[in-house]
Amino acid sequence: MSTTLRLGIAGLGTVGVGTVKIVQRNAALLTARTGREIAISAVSARTKGLDRGVRLNDYAWEDDPVALARRDDVDVFVELIGGDEGPAKDAVEAAIDAGKDVVTANKALLAMHGQSLAERAEAKGVSIRYEAAVAGGIPAIKALTEGLAGNEITRVMGVMNGTCNYILTRMQSAGMDYQTVFAECEELGYLEADPTLDVGGIDAGHKLAILAAIAFGTKVDFGALSIQGIERITIEDIERATDMGYRIKLLGVAQHSGRGLEARMTPCLVPEASPLGQLEGPTNMVVLEGDSVGQIVLRGAGAGEGPTASAVMADVCDLARGIRLPVFGQPASALREPVASTQETPAPFYLRMTLVDKPGALARIAAVLGECGISIDRMRQYGHSSTDAPVLIVTHKATRDALDAAMAAMHGTGVLVSEPVALRIEEV
Amino acid sequence: MSTTLRLGIAGLGTVGVGTVKIVQRNAALLTARTGREIAISAVSARTKGLDRGVRLNDYAWEDDPVALARRDDVDVFVELIGGDEGPAKDAVEAAIDAGKDVVTANKALLAMHGQSLAERAEAKGVSIRYEAAVAGGIPAIKALTEGLAGNEITRVMGVMNGTCNYILTRMQSAGMDYQTVFAECEELGYLEADPTLDVGGIDAGHKLAILAAIAFGTKVDFGALSIQGIERITIEDIERATDMGYRIKLLGVAQHSGRGLEARMTPCLVPEASPLGQLEGPTNMVVLEGDSVGQIVLRGAGAGEGPTASAVMADVCDLARGIRLPVFGQPASALREPVASTQETPAPFYLRMTLVDKPGALARIAAVLGECGISIDRMRQYGHSSTDAPVLIVTHKATRDALDAAMAAMHGTGVLVSEPVALRIEEV
Repeated sequence: MSTTLRLGIAGLGTVGVGTVKIVQRNAALLTARTGREIAISAVSARTKGLDRGVRLNDYAWEDDPVALARRDDVDVFVELIGGDEGPAKDAVEAAIDAGKDVVTANKALLAMHGQSLAERAEAKGVSIRYEAAVAGGIPAIKALTEGLAGNEITRVMGVMNGTCNYILTRMQSAGMDYQTVFAECEELGYLEADPTLDVGGIDAGHKLAILAAIAFGTKVDFGALSIQGIERITIEDIERATDMGYRIKLLGVAQHSGRGLEARMTPCLVPEASPLGQLEGPTNMVVLEGDSVGQIVLRGAGAGEGPTASAVMADVCDLARGIRLPVFGQPASALREPVASTQETPAPFYLRMTLVDKPGALARIAAVLGECGISIDRMRQYGHSSTDAPVLIVTHKATRDALDAAMAAMHGTGVLVSEPVALRIEEV
Repeated sequence: MSTTLRLGIAGLGTVGVGTVKIVQRNAALLTARTGREIAISAVSARTKGLDRGVRLNDYAWEDDPVALARRDDVDVFVELIGGDEGPAKDAVEAAIDAGKDVVTANKALLAMHGQSLAERAEAKGVSIRYEAAVAGGIPAIKALTEGLAGNEITRVMGVMNGTCNYILTRMQSAGMDYQTVFAECEELGYLEADPTLDVGGIDAGHKLAILAAIAFGTKVDFGALSIQGIERITIEDIERATDMGYRIKLLGVAQHSGRGLEARMTPCLVPEASPLGQLEGPTNMVVLEGDSVGQIVLRGAGAGEGPTASAVMADVCDLARGIRLPVFGQPASALREPVASTQETPAPFYLRMTLVDKPGALARIAAVLGECGISIDRMRQYGHSSTDAPVLIVTHKATRDALDAAMAAMHGTGVLVSEPVALRIEEV
């Protein structure tokens, strides 16, 4: 254990550079804590010779991350390239096959190929660590896999895309509409190259798929998630949710009931006084619930050079200390196929709609809800200057089936001006 | 690694019984996650034969925890007796000497004897784990020792005594005075046998001493803490802090600056909109700050059967999985003597005082503050029916020395009716 742990770092973007900086700046501290020196043998990136604001001359350079992964002087392959296919996947597989441990921040890779990679790694007796893949600097993977190992996990939740939470809270605080804030984010460089990954809920969904696999001992299955982005959330939704004492969050929820596994990443209403409701800006939050521990809430920066590199280095330190666990907390061979729930856990819903301004329009909608077995908790009709009447309804707990039936029946009433918006109100 | 891990549990109070329940209820899950069976060989408590609501017949009984700690059929000694001397200490030392790993929830023992126990354990090559000793179910020790291992820790903070936070928030929500809420807590059994441990800040101080040792690589030193309880906090303080946008918390703060280590457990004002300010009831919160990760906030139940037993079992699972670390995250021999800071980091202060109701009284106080180099941010004089005038002052940032000098000089003015209350306003 007293020999040097040698890293090969592939990808020198924000996180890669942050990782190099920690290894350089905190070298003595890392050795004190892990009992061995942690050193970088070699690095790799698309473009050599860029000034990245950090000294790289002491490390060997590889143009090809696969070659880096196979180097004899690399013990741990640190994959910070990104993407669920291509060089990231090739290099991780090469590292595993060459008997190297892997540390990665790549949520897409794990969400799409986690099971096969875990099987491959465990067959070779190597580790794959990915604290940085979920919620940036928050040690959420460790808390779930180790800190709550004595619990049957009942639910995991998270606000895990900082850009979406920034957009939603900026809309709220500045009273700006979605398109304006989105444009502002584009200008500030807050969005992924393909912004759908952020605002469409894909990126956050990748993270939820990983958490769900650990929590419930199931094979990671991104395809089993129900995903909806924030693109249809209007400033009206945000203001009216606030009127009712709620905030709108892109919230991931995975829970296991007698009906099976539910996992969704969708805009939800949460009480404004809850920790999730109070989460502002790009900060992330992960909520873990277990049969013994109750509810644990973890909050911190979900992205950025320092926080994400901190998570990468936590994994590196664990490996340096000889901490080795199965990839998803149980041997990959023992993970079960997730059985999708036939029915979502019932919840209250927020419904926003615009009705034609005619006598009896609201009564027709109320009747439809009643016929579908959905009772109304609160209803507000807002003042308006046009001929259309904005209406807001908060229901009592209802099943998704009942809600879908009601939404379909509403179309038959002829009083809807446009497609209603329905958002789940999550009990947190 | 496939052999059974055998526990000896000493102490069958709330946490002991909770631990037995998890081992029984989640046996299959524990085996799936750790790769081995976790079983209880023997238990010990002061009184045999009590109905504790859990089946104990399958386990050997020892009257003496020291004998339990030495049993050949015990791999891990789980100490849930409590107290920093007597049977808990004797049994932990016996377990170490017999080559057993130790899991304990005993904050007092670690705060008072952590260094010598760590040296003893590391000399024998055994582990001492104590996740349950700090902030109950919150995996705070793991987050700090492992999750943030890549960081130079800059500050740790925590609200870590649920009873104190319950008292302070109950005073606020019900408008009740300290004595009334304290009596209510006594009736509900919320207080330790010696309530000073809770309301005097001792219990929370034990926890802070442990966190500070890990955070800064220093020998645990409870004596180096500055501790002040909540006994002098009045309903007026709570209401006036609220007027100013603050909440009062019994807050532990440990930070390392060029001046050395500062560690205090004292009532502080924190902004009401911060996560700490929003913490209500008996819930605990631990805030960790590092040079890369920024700020991580952990929130959860700080006490109770399930949450504390969850933390005990996290340690047991780590041992079952073969995870072994030095007791305080670095070898005990490498821990430095803490160098106490000569000066607290400057902060704004809240000052409450009652002045004689005579012209010029307030001007005298303002002059004293000015002479000591303390500038006033906000000052309020409250309406009053008596001949005394309640006054509230929020200062700009000041050193503790300047504040102490000002407090002393105030006594010379002859306008004070009673001893002023000074509380630090912590930037969180």
